Amino acid sequence: MAEHKATLAELNERIKMGPYHQWLGVEVTDLTEDEVVFRIPFREEMMVHPERQYTHGGILATIIDMAADYAIMAWAGMAVPTIDIRVDYHRAAIKCDMIAKARIVKLGRVYSTAEAEVYDPDGKLLASGRGTFLTNVIKD
Amino acid sequence: MAEHKATLAELNERIKMGPYHQWLGVEVTDLTEDEVVFRIPFREEMMVHPERQYTHGGILATIIDMAADYAIMAWAGMAVPTIDIRVDYHRAAIKCDMIAKARIVKLGRVYSTAEAEVYDPDGKLLASGRGTFLTNVIKD
Amino acid sequence: MAEHKATLAELNERIKMGPYHQWLGVEVTDLTEDEVVFRIPFREEMMVHPERQYTHGGILATIIDMAADYAIMAWAGMAVPTIDIRVDYHRAAIKCDMIAKARIVKLGRVYSTAEAEVYDPDGKLLASGRGTFLTNVIKD
Amino acid sequence: MAEHKATLAELNERIKMGPYHQWLGVEVTDLTEDEVVFRIPFREEMMVHPERQYTHGGILATIIDMAADYAIMAWAGMAVPTIDIRVDYHRAAIKCDMIAKARIVKLGRVYSTAEAEVYDPDGKLLASGRGTFLTNVIKD
Repeated sequence: MAEHKATLAELNERIKMGPYHQWLGVEVTDLTEDEVVFRIPFREEMMVHPERQYTHGGILATIIDMAADYAIMAWAGMAVPTIDIRVDYHRAAIKCDMIAKARIVKLGRVYSTAEAEVYDPDGKLLASGRGTFLTNVIKD
Repeated sequence: MAEHKATLAELNERIKMGPYHQWLGVEVTDLTEDEVVFRIPFREEMMVHPERQYTHGGILATIIDMAADYAIMAWAGMAVPTIDIRVDYHRAAIKCDMIAKARIVKLGRVYSTAEAEVYDPDGKLLASGRGTFLTNVIKD
Repeated sequence: MAEHKATLAELNERIKMGPYHQWLGVEVTDLTEDEVVFRIPFREEMMVHPERQYTHGGILATIIDMAADYAIMAWAGMAVPTIDIRVDYHRAAIKCDMIAKARIVKLGRVYSTAEAEVYDPDGKLLASGRGTFLTNVIKD
Repeated sequence: MAEHKATLAELNERIKMGPYHQWLGVEVTDLTEDEVVFRIPFREEMMVHPERQYTHGGILATIIDMAADYAIMAWAGMAVPTIDIRVDYHRAAIKCDMIAKARIVKLGRVYSTAEAEVYDPDGKLLASGRGTFLTNVIKD
């Protein structure tokens, strides 16, 4: 993988600027050679059903979109507009904090693809997916 | 299209039970022969960037997932688990209320597909997409 | 919908230039105010299983990709590169000719989305989906 | 990863039964601890344009669908119906043989997800994607 274009501190500074990211309480916890890692703490308002108490699929989709976008930022230097996303739901997230991991699939001059997964704190896979992002705004 | 299996009042009662739906402030405003219509008011925490002020793509994904799910509920009688979603982003949503419309693509015995769009109050298309839902839990 | 940028004859001339389109035997049969319609005759080599005799899902995916692409051509004047596709499978296609219908979801300056469905000759829905296409190559 | 439920020979025997797979000339070349590997030789009829000479996106979609499906077969013991697929196009495939690699994302009791990539002989990524498959037909 190519070298980083943003540091862990820069990713955190940028992600925490967003009002919705603040609501989510997301933190970028690690930036490895090929992955960005995030932590999203549980909050009661995330639930879709008051009794079954699992987190709304829209929250998981948000995490996939955000994590893939910040993988682009880590290796291309900019947060970029999302063209589209695909999200697969594997397990219900029951009142748990969530860990996300994202990486580049293909960095292109016009559009780029990144993928992400969301895990519970025990490492069980809750959701996975990918997004395509508009990277024609990025200067070489 | 087959007859409804839930009324507008039932859709609203069910959707408003969800803590995240309450946070979104969503209301089901209409149930026509083949569509369910929703209104989601803007709130400041939905923004992804404090200056550009557009709504987070994850909020739009949430609306596509929720709207398609409630189309299944309107014609199959139950809110059902999402298998996966696809969301396409067409225009930035700038500090605006949103209108969503959803309808069935195919109702099946094991899984079903529904599609949805999100519009701004002027009728401009912001996002569109589809979801596949697990309907093997539905009794005939 | 905006006016056409290609005629039915031009769509047919272009589509039949492609060796794989020739193998498929596809014909553009109609161009309405908002849809392009295609006919794809069955051929034995399309089957995925010699006994169950249904058509390979890859053939249906090909039709979704091609039909959506030619909807872009009909309203933007060019066949354009596919960025990504999503295909939903609704029913097995058993040794039947197929009809496809495609239309624009959103025509944009950089990328555009179109959707398509595949039917059997009785009008039963076999597959549906959508594609995103790179339209930054199109001059205004 | 769990142990295999099918051998390389069984995967080849099954895949080569399909008339469309025979037309594609696909061969399963390897079955590792967590991947299935395929080789698909170029043939002239795969091209979408007689001059630009690149392979039709529908062929790449077919390979993603087929490869992901056979990853399910390798670890669950059955080729299963596809619910839906997503395919991302990264580079044009110009008159080249293709190598595909596929693996399980999540094996479930009702539905399962697998992902795949398509490469040219130099290892350049041409396309990638994922499929969701109906695995409720599989006995434990």
